Amino acid sequence: MKMARVYNFSAGPAVLPEEVLKEAAEEMLDYKGCGMSVMEMSHRSKMFSDIIETAEADLRELMNIPDNYKVLFLQGGASSQFSAIPMNLMKNKEADFIITGQWAKKAYKEASRYGKANIIASSEDKTFTYIPDCSDLNISENADYVYVCYNNTIYGTKYQQVPDTKGKILVADMSSCILSEPVNVEDFGVIYFGVQKNVGPAGVVVAVIREDLITDDVLPGTPTMLKWKTQADAKSLYNTPPCYGIYICGKVFQWLKKQGGLEAMKKHNEEKAKILYDFLDQSEMFKGTVVKEDRSLMNVPFVTGDDEMDAKFVKEAKEAGFENLKGHRTVGGMRASIYNAMPKEGVEKLVEFMKKFEEENK
Amino acid sequence: MKMARVYNFSAGPAVLPEEVLKEAAEEMLDYKGCGMSVMEMSHRSKMFSDIIETAEADLRELMNIPDNYKVLFLQGGASSQFSAIPMNLMKNKEADFIITGQWAKKAYKEASRYGKANIIASSEDKTFTYIPDCSDLNISENADYVYVCYNNTIYGTKYQQVPDTKGKILVADMSSCILSEPVNVEDFGVIYFGVQKNVGPAGVVVAVIREDLITDDVLPGTPTMLKWKTQADAKSLYNTPPCYGIYICGKVFQWLKKQGGLEAMKKHNEEKAKILYDFLDQSEMFKGTVVKEDRSLMNVPFVTGDDEMDAKFVKEAKEAGFENLKGHRTVGGMRASIYNAMPKEGVEKLVEFMKKFEEENK
Ligand SMILES: Cc1ncc(COP(=O)(O)O)c(C=O)c1O
Ligand SMILES: Cc1ncc(COP(=O)(O)O)c(C=O)c1O
Ligand SMILES: [Mg+2]
Ligand SMILES: [Mg+2]
Ligand SMILES: [Mg+2]
Ligand SMILES: [Mg+2]
Repeated sequence: MKMARVYNFSAGPAVLPEEVLKEAAEEMLDYKGCGMSVMEMSHRSKMFSDIIETAEADLRELMNIPDNYKVLFLQGGASSQFSAIPMNLMKNKEADFIITGQWAKKAYKEASRYGKANIIASSEDKTFTYIPDCSDLNISENADYVYVCYNNTIYGTKYQQVPDTKGKILVADMSSCILSEPVNVEDFGVIYFGVQKNVGPAGVVVAVIREDLITDDVLPGTPTMLKWKTQADAKSLYNTPPCYGIYICGKVFQWLKKQGGLEAMKKHNEEKAKILYDFLDQSEMFKGTVVKEDRSLMNVPFVTGDDEMDAKFVKEAKEAGFENLKGHRTVGGMRASIYNAMPKEGVEKLVEFMKKFEEENK
Repeated sequence: MKMARVYNFSAGPAVLPEEVLKEAAEEMLDYKGCGMSVMEMSHRSKMFSDIIETAEADLRELMNIPDNYKVLFLQGGASSQFSAIPMNLMKNKEADFIITGQWAKKAYKEASRYGKANIIASSEDKTFTYIPDCSDLNISENADYVYVCYNNTIYGTKYQQVPDTKGKILVADMSSCILSEPVNVEDFGVIYFGVQKNVGPAGVVVAVIREDLITDDVLPGTPTMLKWKTQADAKSLYNTPPCYGIYICGKVFQWLKKQGGLEAMKKHNEEKAKILYDFLDQSEMFKGTVVKEDRSLMNVPFVTGDDEMDAKFVKEAKEAGFENLKGHRTVGGMRASIYNAMPKEGVEKLVEFMKKFEEENK
């Protein structure tokens, strides 16, 4: 087996712990002596029940999820939840949105198709380089919920405080920051995430939902598969779930527990991000694009201010084994995604490379 | 790496070609020298484009798919298509259904939520042990389409002829017979399949759809993700697709090409199924439950006529390394699913075991 691994700064699908991949490779033809691959297992088998139940238990432990929240393993990507959320929650057919980038906007647009969706705050005025003040939001009286994208993958911002929703249910897309640090689950009605950034292979979306929000009272025409109650009642086995993806997520949960859980990850991620942000702050060539107080620990966008120089940097970085540093196709520049599985060494080496590049190109 | 493999007769997720699993294991940490796993690759990368485009091209070649059909790689399982089909096709809000078991019935029930769904034929009167005569169906004048489940996974029936829909669009769920033999794609408006039976790991559903059926004119409230046009316009990359599953499907397509394509598979599958059906037909203990003319090549249900004997058989078979022979939880008895990847040897050994069991228990 070849083992030349690059440093992969992809925003998602993204780097996974090497240990997890090695185990998966070893178990590919014969999972724990059962004579078959996890890909080949009936989702109704004892073996697979153990896998999904252990995954759920480990996630509950890591995130400290209270008993009155359900954990659903779903398909369809975060984008399917853009529809599922209004379909399941819009009893008054109204919801409030805070727009911090493309993902919140997409969720907002989809919700607008099902009811009245209000933008109550936005950072679009400054190209989403900050998180709006959420201490005194203009919450709509009839809003069924308030929606946020907790970490914007593209612009590299993160909420540092839970928005004050004045008692309304808070729904958060945590796709790109999940499990990077502790959150208080009780502050949220729904936390959901596509796993393909910080947890596993694309094709699984996990929703952590307060029990009382899972009801039969959904919008007419809600597809049975998008109704949370269908999935909750069947413990995520209403139909065939994305078994192999769930298995890999389970391994990542175990790996996180071995790392010391989310407090330890927070510390580790803060250290890692600091290496890069400190460099950006003193560099004369590179600069971060987000206001300091709202910087993401996971996605670090930066620019040189010169498109040609940006392109040269991305190209030379790639040649040196630093992959996927190009910014999102809609914004340009660079972006280093430094998720849980990115080793500190990867960030150190990147900064070394940036220093050298700056030296050579000044 | 341990290599003790059982004979896995699971109805899905199901056995995959050992060769494919071995390759996947070898490439797990480093796909073709690119330094990362396919699980870690951006879905917008050149590497992944090659994977999905090659998979599509190979599927087109295998099935001989005409140019005026799109191939979509989707998420959400076959069950999500139970909603997507009426949402995308019900222009007159009416459709006809032929009920041959639980899967057609579920699709029918879901469609009934969006328009007038008519049952125009059914084999429920005889516990779905046959395929209704479809030579002169009572097609509804305003039906937007006629829906069938081409191979019933649970009851083990298969259409031997394409139903005469009198010019109406035919939509077929081929989840459990796809790629087991050639079909004439042009006879169908839509062919779709969850890949977890005959192609790959659960979490990918493939839809082959005639271009003119992919329109903006969908039912109001159709989730953006369930609108086929969203996915067709974006070449299955509207959002993050289930990349790793698609990669495995691609490998299975390549494997099928190496086996000689679908004509060769048909011959192989007929030989394999004959071994088991011939035994059932002469056995005094075991008998197949489906009328001879409508037997599936893929799913072979059988019974002893005695529940206790059935249970004893399933238990002893398991001990002897034949896994997942228990019938579907809703019907009981036994079922051997003998998909493409089940080697002939597996069926031969099973029949040997059944002979011995009959001898010992008569
Ligand atoms: C924060 C966030 N939300 C949602 C999405 C969309 O996820 P998916 O591609 O699974 O639909 C993305 C990702 O790509 C994202 O970064
Ligand atoms: C013929 C058929 N259609 C549909 C389904 C449902 O597929 P899924 O579990 O992917 O929703 C199944 C399977 O389990 C099946 O056998
Ligand atoms: Mg956003
Ligand atoms: Mg600077
Ligand atoms: Mg059926
Ligand atoms: Mg007999």
